[in-house]
Amino acid sequence: MIAAVVYGPDGVTEYDDLATARDATGTTWVRVSDADPGELDTVAETFGIHSLVVEDVRNEVRAKTQPYDDYAFTLVKTVELARGDQSFEEEILAEAVGICVGEDWVVSLSVPPDDPVDRVWDAVRRGDSRILDRGPDFTAYRIVDMIVDEYFTVLDDLETDIEAIEEAVTESTDIGTLEDINALRRDLLAFRKVAWPCREAVGVLARGGPTQVRDETEKYYRDVYDHLVQVVDLTETYRDLTTGTRDIYLNTLSQSTNEVMKVLTVIATIFLPLTFVAGVYGMNFAGSPYNMPELTWRYGYPAALVAMGAIAGGMLVYFKRKEYL
Amino acid sequence: MIAAVVYGPDGVTEYDDLATARDATGTTWVRVSDADPGELDTVAETFGIHSLVVEDVRNEVRAKTQPYDDYAFTLVKTVELARGDQSFEEEILAEAVGICVGEDWVVSLSVPPDDPVDRVWDAVRRGDSRILDRGPDFTAYRIVDMIVDEYFTVLDDLETDIEAIEEAVTESTDIGTLEDINALRRDLLAFRKVAWPCREAVGVLARGGPTQVRDETEKYYRDVYDHLVQVVDLTETYRDLTTGTRDIYLNTLSQSTNEVMKVLTVIATIFLPLTFVAGVYGMNFAGSPYNMPELTWRYGYPAALVAMGAIAGGMLVYFKRKEYL
Amino acid sequence: MIAAVVYGPDGVTEYDDLATARDATGTTWVRVSDADPGELDTVAETFGIHSLVVEDVRNEVRAKTQPYDDYAFTLVKTVELARGDQSFEEEILAEAVGICVGEDWVVSLSVPPDDPVDRVWDAVRRGDSRILDRGPDFTAYRIVDMIVDEYFTVLDDLETDIEAIEEAVTESTDIGTLEDINALRRDLLAFRKVAWPCREAVGVLARGGPTQVRDETEKYYRDVYDHLVQVVDLTETYRDLTTGTRDIYLNTLSQSTNEVMKVLTVIATIFLPLTFVAGVYGMNFAGSPYNMPELTWRYGYPAALVAMGAIAGGMLVYFKRKEYL
Amino acid sequence: MIAAVVYGPDGVTEYDDLATARDATGTTWVRVSDADPGELDTVAETFGIHSLVVEDVRNEVRAKTQPYDDYAFTLVKTVELARGDQSFEEEILAEAVGICVGEDWVVSLSVPPDDPVDRVWDAVRRGDSRILDRGPDFTAYRIVDMIVDEYFTVLDDLETDIEAIEEAVTESTDIGTLEDINALRRDLLAFRKVAWPCREAVGVLARGGPTQVRDETEKYYRDVYDHLVQVVDLTETYRDLTTGTRDIYLNTLSQSTNEVMKVLTVIATIFLPLTFVAGVYGMNFAGSPYNMPELTWRYGYPAALVAMGAIAGGMLVYFKRKEYL
Amino acid sequence: MIAAVVYGPDGVTEYDDLATARDATGTTWVRVSDADPGELDTVAETFGIHSLVVEDVRNEVRAKTQPYDDYAFTLVKTVELARGDQSFEEEILAEAVGICVGEDWVVSLSVPPDDPVDRVWDAVRRGDSRILDRGPDFTAYRIVDMIVDEYFTVLDDLETDIEAIEEAVTESTDIGTLEDINALRRDLLAFRKVAWPCREAVGVLARGGPTQVRDETEKYYRDVYDHLVQVVDLTETYRDLTTGTRDIYLNTLSQSTNEVMKVLTVIATIFLPLTFVAGVYGMNFAGSPYNMPELTWRYGYPAALVAMGAIAGGMLVYFKRKEYL
Ligand SMILES: [Mg+2]
Ligand SMILES: [Mg+2]
Ligand SMILES: [Mg+2]
Ligand SMILES: [Mg+2]
Ligand SMILES: [Mg+2]
Ligand SMILES: [Mg+2]
Ligand SMILES: [Mg+2]
Ligand SMILES: [Mg+2]
Ligand SMILES: [Mg+2]
Ligand SMILES: [Mg+2]
Ligand SMILES: [Mg+2]
Ligand SMILES: [Mg+2]
Ligand SMILES: [Mg+2]
Ligand SMILES: [Mg+2]
Ligand SMILES: [Mg+2]
Ligand SMILES: [Mg+2]
Ligand SMILES: [Mg+2]
Ligand SMILES: [Mg+2]
Ligand SMILES: [Mg+2]
Ligand SMILES: [Mg+2]
Ligand SMILES: [Mg+2]
Ligand SMILES: [Mg+2]
Ligand SMILES: [Mg+2]
Ligand SMILES: [Mg+2]
Ligand SMILES: [Mg+2]
Ligand SMILES: [Mg+2]
Ligand SMILES: [Mg+2]
Ligand SMILES: [Mg+2]
Ligand SMILES: [Mg+2]
Ligand SMILES: [Mg+2]
Ligand SMILES: [Mg+2]
Repeated sequence: MIAAVVYGPDGVTEYDDLATARDATGTTWVRVSDADPGELDTVAETFGIHSLVVEDVRNEVRAKTQPYDDYAFTLVKTVELARGDQSFEEEILAEAVGICVGEDWVVSLSVPPDDPVDRVWDAVRRGDSRILDRGPDFTAYRIVDMIVDEYFTVLDDLETDIEAIEEAVTESTDIGTLEDINALRRDLLAFRKVAWPCREAVGVLARGGPTQVRDETEKYYRDVYDHLVQVVDLTETYRDLTTGTRDIYLNTLSQSTNEVMKVLTVIATIFLPLTFVAGVYGMNFAGSPYNMPELTWRYGYPAALVAMGAIAGGMLVYFKRKEYL
Repeated sequence: MIAAVVYGPDGVTEYDDLATARDATGTTWVRVSDADPGELDTVAETFGIHSLVVEDVRNEVRAKTQPYDDYAFTLVKTVELARGDQSFEEEILAEAVGICVGEDWVVSLSVPPDDPVDRVWDAVRRGDSRILDRGPDFTAYRIVDMIVDEYFTVLDDLETDIEAIEEAVTESTDIGTLEDINALRRDLLAFRKVAWPCREAVGVLARGGPTQVRDETEKYYRDVYDHLVQVVDLTETYRDLTTGTRDIYLNTLSQSTNEVMKVLTVIATIFLPLTFVAGVYGMNFAGSPYNMPELTWRYGYPAALVAMGAIAGGMLVYFKRKEYL
Repeated sequence: MIAAVVYGPDGVTEYDDLATARDATGTTWVRVSDADPGELDTVAETFGIHSLVVEDVRNEVRAKTQPYDDYAFTLVKTVELARGDQSFEEEILAEAVGICVGEDWVVSLSVPPDDPVDRVWDAVRRGDSRILDRGPDFTAYRIVDMIVDEYFTVLDDLETDIEAIEEAVTESTDIGTLEDINALRRDLLAFRKVAWPCREAVGVLARGGPTQVRDETEKYYRDVYDHLVQVVDLTETYRDLTTGTRDIYLNTLSQSTNEVMKVLTVIATIFLPLTFVAGVYGMNFAGSPYNMPELTWRYGYPAALVAMGAIAGGMLVYFKRKEYL
Repeated sequence: MIAAVVYGPDGVTEYDDLATARDATGTTWVRVSDADPGELDTVAETFGIHSLVVEDVRNEVRAKTQPYDDYAFTLVKTVELARGDQSFEEEILAEAVGICVGEDWVVSLSVPPDDPVDRVWDAVRRGDSRILDRGPDFTAYRIVDMIVDEYFTVLDDLETDIEAIEEAVTESTDIGTLEDINALRRDLLAFRKVAWPCREAVGVLARGGPTQVRDETEKYYRDVYDHLVQVVDLTETYRDLTTGTRDIYLNTLSQSTNEVMKVLTVIATIFLPLTFVAGVYGMNFAGSPYNMPELTWRYGYPAALVAMGAIAGGMLVYFKRKEYL
Repeated sequence: MIAAVVYGPDGVTEYDDLATARDATGTTWVRVSDADPGELDTVAETFGIHSLVVEDVRNEVRAKTQPYDDYAFTLVKTVELARGDQSFEEEILAEAVGICVGEDWVVSLSVPPDDPVDRVWDAVRRGDSRILDRGPDFTAYRIVDMIVDEYFTVLDDLETDIEAIEEAVTESTDIGTLEDINALRRDLLAFRKVAWPCREAVGVLARGGPTQVRDETEKYYRDVYDHLVQVVDLTETYRDLTTGTRDIYLNTLSQSTNEVMKVLTVIATIFLPLTFVAGVYGMNFAGSPYNMPELTWRYGYPAALVAMGAIAGGMLVYFKRKEYL
C-alpha cells in the first residue's frame, strides 16, 4: 500500500501520483506499508533512494541511522509481545520501519503493516497543527516516538510476568517454573537485542548527525533517546531480577531436598535402634542360665517397652535441639 | 505551590508576581513544589522554559543535564528508603526535582513535595550570605548538594541491612534469609539506577558544560561529582558483599544437608549390621547338630552381645576417624 | 592455482601472463587459491606485495585490514561447520582469504581452496555488469560479502543444534547432554573468535580507511559491516541461550535427585515403623502375665494388622500433604 | 601538629612562623599531621588553599588530583592491614593525606598521623641532596611514592592469607573456611576501592596535567603510576584466585556428601538383603511339609550362612567395580 | 655479561670498549644479560640511560614502552613454563628484557640469562644481511619477535594440558582433577597478566609512537602486535574452555551422587517391604483361631514366598520405568 500526502501551515492534500506529490510545495510524506513486492522499488526510484536502503527494509536488519547524500535513512523496529507456545525468539515480534528524511519530504517504508505509524498518519490527515508546519524531520520524529512508546507497553507486560513468577517461585519447585524464568530471560534478551541498536540509531539523530535534522528537532530526538536509554536500563534491571528469582527457585529446591533428608533421617534414626532391640529379644538363645534370662523375667516385656520409649524420646529431644523437627 | 524570592548582597525580598520577580535586580529563585496541575506550565511560560523540560519533570525521567539556549536544565532525583512489605522496586522512593539556571534566575520544579530543597530555601530566606551573593548557579549547586547528601543516609541504612543479614546468615537456613538478601540486592539495583544517571548529570556541570555555570561554581560541582562517584562505588561494593553473603547462605544449607546425611549414615551403619546379627539368631533352624548350635551354647547370648558391641564400637571408631562425629 | 582476468565496461579477457594482465587496461583480478608452495610469492613479486602479507595468508592469522603504500590488504576467514567427532576447536573450519586492492587491480590469495570466491569469479567471467564496471574495490566487496553470507548458514546450523538440545534437556539427565551443550558453546566460542576480528577488519573498510576504497563502495562495506555486527550479536545471544539451557539441565538433575530422595523417604518412613511393630511381636518374652499378653489375646493378630495399616495410612496422608507423592 | 622547613641546594632551615617560611627563598614544605581542629584552616589561609580542599582532607574522600589556580591538589590514601575480629570493611585501614604543590612550596595535610610521610620528612631534615634541590613537585612525588610502597606490603600480607586458605581448603569443609575466603575477598574489595582512584589520581600527574609538575618529575610519577597499575592488577588476580579457592572448597563439600552417601549405600545394600534372608528363616510357618522344610534340613543353617556370605561378597565385588570402595 | 657489536651493510665488528663501540659508524648493539650487580649501571651511564629504566629492568615490572628524549625504552617479558609441584604463580616463569633504541644504537638489558635473545645475537654475528643493514629499530623488533614466538610454545603446552584434563574429567570425580583445572586456570591467569601489558607495549611501537621506530619497521611491529592480540585471545578462549570443563567435572560429581542415591533407593525399596513381610510371619501370635492362621495353612510358606517375589518384581518394573535401573 502506497499513500501520499503534502502538508504545511495551510493544510493537507492527498495525492495519487508520487512524482506530483514529491514536487508539490510543502512537506511530502509517502507511506509504504503492508507492501506488495515492487512497491518499495517504485517509491525508491521516485525519491532517488539507494537500493541498499530498500534491501535493509526488506531484510529487517538491526536498527540504524545512515546519512546518504540527499536524505537521512533511519530504520527502527516496532515491537509486539506474541504470547503463546512459540519457537525460539518468536515471542518478541519485531518489524522494521524505514524512514528517509529529505529536504522537504519524508518516506516511510515497511513490508508488514506498521500499526504505530497509523496514529501519526491520522494526526496529519486530521490537520494536527503540531505536526503540519514543522517539516519532514519532525514528522519522522513523531513516527519514531510512537514506535518507542510501544516499547514501554512491552516492558510493562514483561514486568507483570516477572511479578507472577516471583510469586510462584517460593511456592513450588515445579520444573515448569524454571522454564518460565528461562523463557522470560530469553524474551528480555530478544527485546534488548532490538532496543539496543535502536538507542544507537536515535542517538545519532539526537547528536544532530544528519543535516536534514534541524536544531529544534534534535531536542525532540534527545527526548526519545532518553526514553530508549531508560528502556535498555530497565531491560538490564529485569534480567538482574530474574537472576535473583532463579537463585530463589534453585534454593527452594535444595531446601526441599534438605527437608526430605531430615524426615528420612529422623524416621530411620528412631526406628533402626528400636527394631534392633526388638530383634535382640526375638533371638532364640536358650538352655542356659546366661541365655536371655530377661525373656522370662517378670517385668521383662514392660521394661523392654520402656527402654524403647526412652530411646525414641531421647532421639526426638536430640532432633528438636538440632532443629530437624 | 509556587513561591518566589529575589536576593543579592543587599538582602532578600519575597514576591507574589512571577514576572515582577523575574525582572527585579538580583538573583530570582522561583520554586514550584507539590505542584497543582498547571503550576508547572505557568512558571515555564513566564521564564520561556521548553515544554520538553516540563514533560521530563512530570514523567520523572532519569537524571540529566541538558543545555537550552537561555538556561541550563538539570534533573536530579531525591531518594528515600520506604521500608515495609511493598511491591517491586517501591522501596527506593525516587522523586524528580528539575532545576533551570538562567542568567540571573533559577527555577526549581517538582510535582511531589521536595523536602531536601526546604533547607536551601530556608537558608536563603534567613539571608545566609554564603548563598545570597553567589548567583543562581551556586543556589542550584546547593540544592543538588542537599539532595545528594540524602543518598549517603540511604546508603547507611542499606549497610545496616547488610550487617544484619550477615549476622543472620550463618545461624539459620531459613528461606526468608535468601529472600531478604534478594530484596536488598534489588534495593541496591534500584538505588544504583537512580544514582548512576545523577552522577552523569552532575559530571556535565562539573566539566563546565553549560555557560550558566561559572568557573568558581564548577569547583563545587566537582565536589558533588566526587560524592556521587563514591555513592556509585559503594553501591557496587555492597552488591559484591551481598553476593558473598548469598554464597555463605547457600553453603550453610549444603553443609546442613551434609551433616544430616552423616547422622543418617552413622545410625544406619551401626544398627543395620547389629539388626542383621539379631535377625540371624532369631532364625528357626533346628533338629540337626549343624542347625544353630550357638543358640544352646552356655555363653551364646553373652557372646552375641559382646560381638554386637564390638561391631558398634568398631563403626564408631571408624566414623570418628572419618570425622563424621 | 593462479588465474588472471582483466575486465571493464567493454568485457572480460583471461590472461596467462601475470605482468601482461597487470598492465592491461581495466580491472585486473589475479586469483591464487589451492596454492602450491611458491605461487603466493610469484604473485606477490609481480604486484609488489609485502612479504608480511604473504606470511599472514600462509599463517592464517586473525582477520584484519592493513593499508600499505600502493594497495590495501584485507584478510577474512571463510567458515564451514565440520560436524563429527573431532578434536578441540576443529568443528569450526576457518580458512584465510587475503585480498589486496590496488589502483586498478585486485589480488585474492588463499592456500586452501576458496569456495565462496568461486561464485564471484564465475559472475565476472559470465560478464556480470554489476561487477565489471565498478572497479577493483567493488570486486573485493563482492568477495567479502560472499564469505560473510556463509556465516549466516553456519549460524543457522548452530541454532538448529540449540533447538535440538533444548528439546533433549528436559527429558533426560544423560551426561552426554551436558557434553553436547559444552561442545556447542565451544563452537560458538570458536565462531565468535573468527567473526569478531572480521567485523573489525570490515569496519575499517566501511569507515573509508584505505584510499583504494571509493566513497560509493564504502556504502556497500557498511552493509557487510551491519551483517557482521548482527553475526556477532547472534553469537552472543546463542551463548546466553546455552547458558539458560545448561541451567535447566543441571536443575533437571537436582530435581531427579530430589525425587529419588522422596521415593526412598516415603518407602523407609512407611516400612521402618511397620517392621518395628512386627519385630516387637516377634520377641520371645514369656512366662509371666506381664510378658506380651497381647500375643495370646483372641484378636491380637488382627488388631496388630489394623494398627500397622493405620500407621501406613497415616504416613501416606502425611506425605500426600507434603506433596512427596 | 604543624611543622615547616625551607630547603634548597644550600641546606635546610626549620621555621616556626608559617608566613615567614612561605616567603623564604627555597622550597617551603609545611606539614600538618595528627591535626588539631583548626590547624588545617590556619595553614590553608596562609597559603590560599580553597576550603573544598580542607573539606576533602577532613572527610577522607577518594584519592584524586585537582588543579587549582595557584597550586595542584592531590589526595592519596595510606593503607594499613588491621587484622582482628572487626566489623565490615574495617580491616583495610585507609587514611587520607592531602598534598598541595605550589610554585615554590608544598603543603601536606592529614588529620590522623601520617607515618609514611615521616621517612621523607626525615630525609629532608637530614639534608638528602636527592630531594633538596629538586623543587616542591619532587618532594610531593617522594611522599606519594612512600605511600604507594606500603601498598605492596599490604598485598604481600593478603597473598600470605591466600596461600594459607589454599592449604586449608582441601583439608576440611569447616564453614569457617568459607567465611575466611569471604573476609579475604572483602579485604581485596576494600583495598581495590582505595587503590583504583589512587591510580587515577597519580595518572593525572604522570600525564603532566597540573603545570606545577615539571617534565623531569613527570617521569617519576609515571614510575609510581606503573606501580599502581601493578597493584590494581594484583588485586584483580587475587580475587580470581579466591574464586578458584572457593570453588574447590564448595566441591570438597559436595565430594564429602557424595562419599557419605556411598558409605551409607554400601552398608544398606549389603545388610538389607542379609537381614531379609534372616527374617525369612525367622518366620514361624509350620505344620505342613511345604512350610519351611529347610529349617529342619540337616545343613539348613550352614547353607543359609553360605548364601548370605555369597550375597555380601557379590555386593562387595559390585561396589568395587563401581568404585564406591 | 656485557658484549658489544657494531654492524652495517659492510659487516660486523665486536668491541670490548663500550664508548668506542658507541661512537663507531654503524648500528651498535650492547647486550647485557645474566648481569652482575653494577653492569646495568655501567652501560646506562655510557649511553645516557635514565636510572628509572635500570630500576624497571631490575624490578622486572610490567611490560611497557616509554619514550625518553634520546631513545625509546621497551620492556618485554620472556615466558617459560616451569612444570612441577611449585607454589603460587611460580609455574609461569617470566623474566624481563629491557631494550633501549637510540639514533644508531640498541641496548638490551636483562638481569637473568635472556635465551631468546641469543638467536638474534647469533644471527647478527653470523652476518645475517636481513638484520645488518636495517638499523637498530629492526634489531629491536627481531628481539621482541623472538620473545613473543616463545609465547605460542607456552600456549601449545597449556592447550595440551587442557586436552588431557578434558579426557580425565568425564572418567573420574577425583578431587585432584578440580585442583588440576584450577592450577591450569591460574597458569592462564598468570600468563595473561604477562601477555596483556606486552601487547600494549608493542601496540605503542606499532602505532609509531617513538621517533626512533621508522615507518618500515612499524609494519613489522604491527605483525608482532597481531601475534600478541592472538595470544591474548587464545588465553581468554582457554579460560572459557576450562570453565566448561569445570562445569562438566562438577556435573559428573552430581551425577555420581544421583546414581548412588538411586542404587540405595532401589535396594531399600525392594528389601524394606520384603523384610516387613518376613517380620510379620516371625510374630509370635498364637492360641486363637484369629491369631496367624496362615502360619499353619498347608501352602502358607510357598504363598508368602510368591507374595514376596511379586512385591520385588513389581518394584523392579516400577524402577525400570522410572529409569533408575
Ligand atoms: Mg543490508
Ligand atoms: Mg520462546
Ligand atoms: Mg529479529
Ligand atoms: Mg518480522
Ligand atoms: Mg515518547
Ligand atoms: Mg512464554
Ligand atoms: Mg546438591
Ligand atoms: Mg521526555
Ligand atoms: Mg518508583
Ligand atoms: Mg525510577
Ligand atoms: Mg515519584
Ligand atoms: Mg554534599
Ligand atoms: Mg522488603
Ligand atoms: Mg604475521
Ligand atoms: Mg569439538
Ligand atoms: Mg583458527
Ligand atoms: Mg585452516
Ligand atoms: Mg551479504
Ligand atoms: Mg559435536
Ligand atoms: Mg568534598
Ligand atoms: Mg575505613
Ligand atoms: Mg574508604
Ligand atoms: Mg580514617
Ligand atoms: Mg615506589
Ligand atoms: Mg577477618
Ligand atoms: Mg619503576
Ligand atoms: Mg611470585
Ligand atoms: Mg610476574
Ligand atoms: Mg624473574
Ligand atoms: Mg613472530
Ligand atoms: Mg601444577
